Parts: sequence; structure tokens; C-alpha cells
Amino acid sequence: MKNELNAELISVGTELLLGQIVNTNAQWLSEELANMGINVFYHGVVGDNENRLYQTFKQAHERSDLVIVTGGLGPTDDDVTREVASTILNAPIYEDEEALKEIQDYYDANNQIMTPNNRKQARLLDGAELLYNSVGMAPGFVLHKENTTWMFLPGVPREMKAIMEEHGFPFIQEKLVPEHTIVSHTLKFIGIGESQLEHDLHDLIQNQSNPTIAPLAGDGENALRLTAKASSNEEAKAIIQDTEDEILSRVGEYCYGRDHDTIQDKVFQLLKENNEVVASAESLTGGKFVDNLISLKGASSICNGAIVCYSPVVKQQVLEVPSLVLDEHGSVSEACALTLAVNVTNKLQSTIGISFTGVAGPEPLEGHEAGTVYIGVYKDQQQPFCKKYHFNGDREMIRQRSVKKGFELLYHLLKK
Amino acid sequence: MKNELNAELISVGTELLLGQIVNTNAQWLSEELANMGINVFYHGVVGDNENRLYQTFKQAHERSDLVIVTGGLGPTDDDVTREVASTILNAPIYEDEEALKEIQDYYDANNQIMTPNNRKQARLLDGAELLYNSVGMAPGFVLHKENTTWMFLPGVPREMKAIMEEHGFPFIQEKLVPEHTIVSHTLKFIGIGESQLEHDLHDLIQNQSNPTIAPLAGDGENALRLTAKASSNEEAKAIIQDTEDEILSRVGEYCYGRDHDTIQDKVFQLLKENNEVVASAESLTGGKFVDNLISLKGASSICNGAIVCYSPVVKQQVLEVPSLVLDEHGSVSEACALTLAVNVTNKLQSTIGISFTGVAGPEPLEGHEAGTVYIGVYKDQQQPFCKKYHFNGDREMIRQRSVKKGFELLYHLLKK
Repeated sequence: MKNELNAELISVGTELLLGQIVNTNAQWLSEELANMGINVFYHGVVGDNENRLYQTFKQAHERSDLVIVTGGLGPTDDDVTREVASTILNAPIYEDEEALKEIQDYYDANNQIMTPNNRKQARLLDGAELLYNSVGMAPGFVLHKENTTWMFLPGVPREMKAIMEEHGFPFIQEKLVPEHTIVSHTLKFIGIGESQLEHDLHDLIQNQSNPTIAPLAGDGENALRLTAKASSNEEAKAIIQDTEDEILSRVGEYCYGRDHDTIQDKVFQLLKENNEVVASAESLTGGKFVDNLISLKGASSICNGAIVCYSPVVKQQVLEVPSLVLDEHGSVSEACALTLAVNVTNKLQSTIGISFTGVAGPEPLEGHEAGTVYIGVYKDQQQPFCKKYHFNGDREMIRQRSVKKGFELLYHLLKK
Repeated sequence: MKNELNAELISVGTELLLGQIVNTNAQWLSEELANMGINVFYHGVVGDNENRLYQTFKQAHERSDLVIVTGGLGPTDDDVTREVASTILNAPIYEDEEALKEIQDYYDANNQIMTPNNRKQARLLDGAELLYNSVGMAPGFVLHKENTTWMFLPGVPREMKAIMEEHGFPFIQEKLVPEHTIVSHTLKFIGIGESQLEHDLHDLIQNQSNPTIAPLAGDGENALRLTAKASSNEEAKAIIQDTEDEILSRVGEYCYGRDHDTIQDKVFQLLKENNEVVASAESLTGGKFVDNLISLKGASSICNGAIVCYSPVVKQQVLEVPSLVLDEHGSVSEACALTLAVNVTNKLQSTIGISFTGVAGPEPLEGHEAGTVYIGVYKDQQQPFCKKYHFNGDREMIRQRSVKKGFELLYHLLKK
């Protein structure tokens, strides 16, 4: 049993190379293997072509400890995966009785007649072990040759997953996995740029190898992934905790959550804990902020609704922004944002109001460049405040970034 | 110019190998390249590791005519894609003034300070041509060495796509594409089910090979892709036109557009042509409908805004639904939907109003199952009408399907 197991995934199929389907098999297998502490170093996609398959398999056999092949095992003449593997692994093809019975049973169960070409799917490589398929017709198989373990699986995601969960992963766990654990953990940050974050943690990121610290960029936010290796889960978690403490002592004020947390979830949760009800007045964001909140189940306890005031008419007639404000300052202004935030709070009987007014573009508005955005925030009994931003990107990005920034402002307001 | 162009896609990134994200970049690029008649023979995924990148790039350089690399160009020390490419392609790295200016401008526009490590993203390979990034910070670049053209692009899908559409594909089309043409064309349908569509066109789909007709299922709508091969663009288009005419003579009433048209675009355009101004009253959809409209540039001429009336308070106080309606029929009712549609139209000084009220779930509401949705439509001077639906899926799917159906109703109202 090696101490490190290096895996490679090969997906065989023209549909992938034509972009007709996305390679979700590779994603799923990678995630599962990562959780088992196995390094996946390569994904490859190749079509049903003998020469190209040969090159790809040959290389995998030389460089990887575990190769998982999905697809290419079908009944048609196109499917040459078995033949190519047979040559490289020096393992003759034979018709396996058990496999044939599986296929025959499948047809019987479905009241269909097995056609001769389906027998092809009962052909294994000499020395292989059958991996039963409980949800479809064709089984997979696994064999160990020289220093590499090869698994061959159908390309249909549902069948591939069932075979792996029932037989493939247990095989790997039992026969191949080294005796250490890997634990991975993500910290989420908002309000600090990627470079600033890396600057503040430079020495840690550079010098640490267990846990490793990997910065991940997102839009309007950032994350760090800490990955520890140890002989037990507890030990790995303890190693991560020490580094996490050090990181949070430096940049903790920007850390809003962990792993699958989103800033929307976090704001939702804080609103709930504090018994606050939020309302939004949205000009350029056009309902995108409130849509984000209402997409979460249980939204009725933290949001009554919103007013989308895209035109001046709605700002004036419904949200009662005085003509004086619009005439003197324009709708893209601090004065307008503040009035909108206060009035929407009162109008919708809420306790917190947030307003978005600005230029989504592409054209400038009232003399302001696209990307100029004012966000107003009001909490009852407190002074409202307003922040001005310049966001980059196209119309949709500017609108999305405004919304994300709105959540950031509410997060900082609520966590106090 | 070769007659056949063989392409290879390499995605650099540990997130892919850990299964944290799916390789949608490879899918999208493959589909676009297939439409241009370019063969993609390999996809590869590899991490930020010098040795493994070297092997992967070296092999690609030897076997492919076009290599598109996504990811690995970031500002951190992890990112070694440039360095490895520089070695293999024998092209020294230099800091490009234009690229640096792009990055500097990006920071200026966002009122942020550029940190030194961001300069790294201005480094190109000697002989490369800059590919501008109109939606993000870091540009891509392309260079031709020996017999291979290399394109390097950021890994963020939105940025990668914008660069390819604006600069990458035009470059390939102009400098690399062989002389037969493939023309592909999509027809979009709404209001007809997938099986009905395939039934009505069965003989055409079965028997035709040039153009081929491929049904594509979408959510709440359907599409057909017609693909023709010919020696000239004109010839291919003529071949497609004949088949298109035949299709439209059978199911034309459901066809709302072509290629990248969306039903939202179409409704937007019809509103504009008819000088209509739409307003929405949104309960369960929570602003998603109006957000879709306001995401389109020029929205101010067709939409004044919306009222998101998630709670009964807003329905009553702002949209003036009589207590009698809420008490007798409930908020999930035809009576409520009709009142909302009429009142939001008048309140927001619009000519058309649409309302959404129902149960997004997961819990039932007022005795109605999740998925029960009423959509009300009002056009001034006309009788308002209301339709009731049962949508399947989770909370978010039910909300999205409601919005899509709203656009379908407006499309049929407006195209008359």
C-alpha cells in the first residue's frame, strides 16, 4: 500500500468533445476521491479513436496508480476502449459468464430480447474483477496490472455512480487507500480584496504545508481552503484549527462563514436572529436584491417585500422622493438613496431598508458613468447612511455587484 | 490554412481536480468550436504544478494545431502556466504596457489600489497578441509557434466567454478555419411540449441528414438545431432555409425566435414596438420577473418598476387588495391575482400589468400545495385574465417556472 495514491480520470466520448454534455462524471469522481484523500492529478477526455485512446491510456498507465475510465464500453463497433486497454495491459479479452448473465437478466427483467451486439458488453479483460451494475445493463470491471489499478465503468452518470458507490469505492478503500485522512475546510471572506488577503497572510500561505492554504477568488468575495493530512480525523481537524485561529486573528473581521455558507444565507440568518424585517427600494438592481432573499425558504419572517422604482415616476409617486431632491441632486445621488431607504422601510412596515440607485449602463445617466452606484441603508431609530461605488463590468455585472455589496453592508450592520 | 484543424482544450486548476467545480469551460468551447467545424480531439485538466503542466503542454504542442488554455493566469505564486508555456514555446515573458494599462484602469474604475502581484497578470509571452477582457481585469493572449496556435484565457467562465466571443473566435475564424463551412442555426419554441414538437416533425428529424435536425430541451421551452455543411456560407444557409420553411409551416405559431434570442428579449422587443409599459406585482416570484426585464439595456422605456408584495401587509397597504378578497379567497387565488394585476398597472402608471401569487414551498400555504401558482394579466381597456398552474420542482424551480410562464403569457398577448 503506497503512502500517496495518484489517480487519473479518463472519459471516453464524442458527446463530450462536441460539447453536447458537460463532464459531470469527472467532477463527481474527483470530489469523492478527494474526500478519500486520493490525489487526482489529471482529467482527460478523448473520443472513440484507437490511436488517440492508445496514447492516452499508455500515458496513464505509466504515470498513475489508479486510472478510472468512464464510457466507451457500449455495444457498437465504435466502442474500442476494451480493445485498446487489452493491448496496453497485455490482457486478452474474454466473454465473462457472470457478466453475460447480468446482461441477460437485465433484458429478461425488462421483457426485451437481447440482440447479439449486446453480448459485447459481457467481454472483460483477463484478470479483471466484475463490478456489478444494479441500475443498468452493462457492468464495470477492475484489474491491476504492473503498478496501476484500472477501473472501467459505463458513461451514464447514474450507472457509473451506482457501481462506484456499491463496488468501486469499497474496492479502493479496502485495497488501495493509504492509512491517513485528509480534511478540507473553507473560510469565506467579504470586504477584503484577494491581493490584500494574500498580502496579510503571505507568510502563512508560503511556508505552510500542513494544512496547506489555498486562496480561491469569487465575485465580490474571497475564500481560503485549508487542507490538512493526518492519521486521524481528529488530528487533522486540530491541525486546521490552529491555522484557522492564526488566520482569524489577522483577518477575522472579514470572515463571514465557512464551506457552503453564502453571504445571503448569513444575512438571512442575522435578520432572523435579530427579529428584523428588511425592505428594499431598487432602481438599477431591479428586484435582484429582494429576489435573492425570497429565494430562501422561510423568507416571510424577514421580508415583507420591495419596491422596484426604476423610473422617476415610481420614485416620486410611490416612494415619495420630493421633486426637490430629484431636481437638485438627481436620482443617482446620496440624497435620493437616503430618502428611498427611509421611505421604503416605513411604507412596507419594515425595520431595515436598503436602497440601490445608480447607472447600470451601458449609457451614462445624469452625467454619471455606468457603474456609479449609491447604496442607502436605514435601520429604524438610527441615522441612515449611504455609500458610493464604482463597479466594473457590463450591465449585468454592475447590477450583481451592487446586490452583493448590499448584502455586505447589511452583514456588517447586523453582526454588530 | 489547413483543411482540418485539430484542437485541444486544457483547463488548469486545482478546483477542477478536487471536484469543486464542473468543467463548463471545456463544454462551452467545444460546442462553439464544433459549430465552426473544428475538431476537438482532447480535453485535459491539470493542476498548478510545473512538471505536470510541462508534460501536458509539451504533448499538446506536438499533436494539436490549436490549443486553448483556460485558467492558471492569476496573480499568485501558484500560477505557473505562463512560465511553463514560456519554456516550451521558447518565448520569453515580458510585461506588456497595454495589458498593464488595462489592469490599472480596472483598479482605477473600481477605486481600488493595485497591489504589486497584480502586475503579474500583465505579463505576456514574446510574440503574443493581446486579447482584451471587457468584463474583468486580466486579459488573455494568443501566439503562434511552430505549427501550433496557443490561446491563454482566464478561467472565470464569464471572462473567458467574453474574450472568446469578442476576440478569440474572430481570430480563429479569420486566421485558422478551413474552407468548408458548417452553418448552425437554432429555432426556439414556447408553448409546445418536447414530445409534441418531435411528433409533428418526426419524418423530417428521422430522414434528413443535411441539414440535420436536433431537438434540444430547455426549461419551459424547446429548441431545434439545424446544421448544414456546404462549400460556402450562402449554400449552407440556403439548405437550412428550405428546411426551416417546412418546419415553420407546421409548428410556426410556437416559434418565438432564433439562436440566442430569449423569450425575455422577445417580450422586451414587442413591448417596445407596441409602446407598452409593463409593471409587475410579485408575491412568490419576489422580483425575479422584473429583474429579468431590467437586466436588458434600454429597459426604462418599457418598465417603470414593480411591487414585490411578499407579505399580506404589502398586498393590502400598497397594492390595495381589499380585505374582503384576502379573507374570502386568500392571497393564493384568482381574485387576488386579478386585483394585483390591475392595481399595479394603475399604481405604477403602466399600460400592462402582470401578477404572480402562489406557493413557492416547501411548505403548503392556505391549504394549497407547493407549486400552485396564479398569474394575472391586465392590459388597460381590456378584461384582465388569470391562469392557474401547478409547477414541479423545488422552491427555486417553481419561482423560475412561474416567471418563464409569465413571459410566455405576455408573448402571446403582445404578438397578436
